[in-house]
Amino acid sequence: MKAIVHIGLKPGVLDPQGRAIARSLTDLGFDSVTGARQGKVIELDIKGNDAEKARQDVTDMCEKLLANTVIESYRIDIEN
Amino acid sequence: MKAIVHIGLKPGVLDPQGRAIARSLTDLGFDSVTGARQGKVIELDIKGNDAEKARQDVTDMCEKLLANTVIESYRIDIEN
Repeated sequence: MKAIVHIGLKPGVLDPQGRAIARSLTDLGFDSVTGARQGKVIELDIKGNDAEKARQDVTDMCEKLLANTVIESYRIDIEN
Repeated sequence: MKAIVHIGLKPGVLDPQGRAIARSLTDLGFDSVTGARQGKVIELDIKGNDAEKARQDVTDMCEKLLANTVIESYRIDIEN
């Protein structure tokens, strides 16, 4: 089973990486870009077939290790 | 309009960040995790309403700046 975890900065949190990307793109001539935010995706291989248990486990992983919940939010997709 | 760019290492490319995540998770007692890969997501705000043009522009951005196409692959989703 696969769990896809999307982690991004919460709205309002300053995103210097995103700003650097937006600025570099406009410097390269891509004038249509008005903003950019960068997040990360972690793809986990999980043993077993219980999607509900997997979701619970991955939520625990996010809270304990994967996300900094002070400034980041996360979303979990489970795929069989 | 929003463009969501998913960038990940190509299959077979060593992913030390993913390995570190998988190892840390098993060290924390999450034995169900058998592997992890880390990628990134860039969310771009794009002016205009032409989805086809936006996709073409974002493809150019990926080739020129956002992705290292030697080792990374990318996927673009356009949202209105």
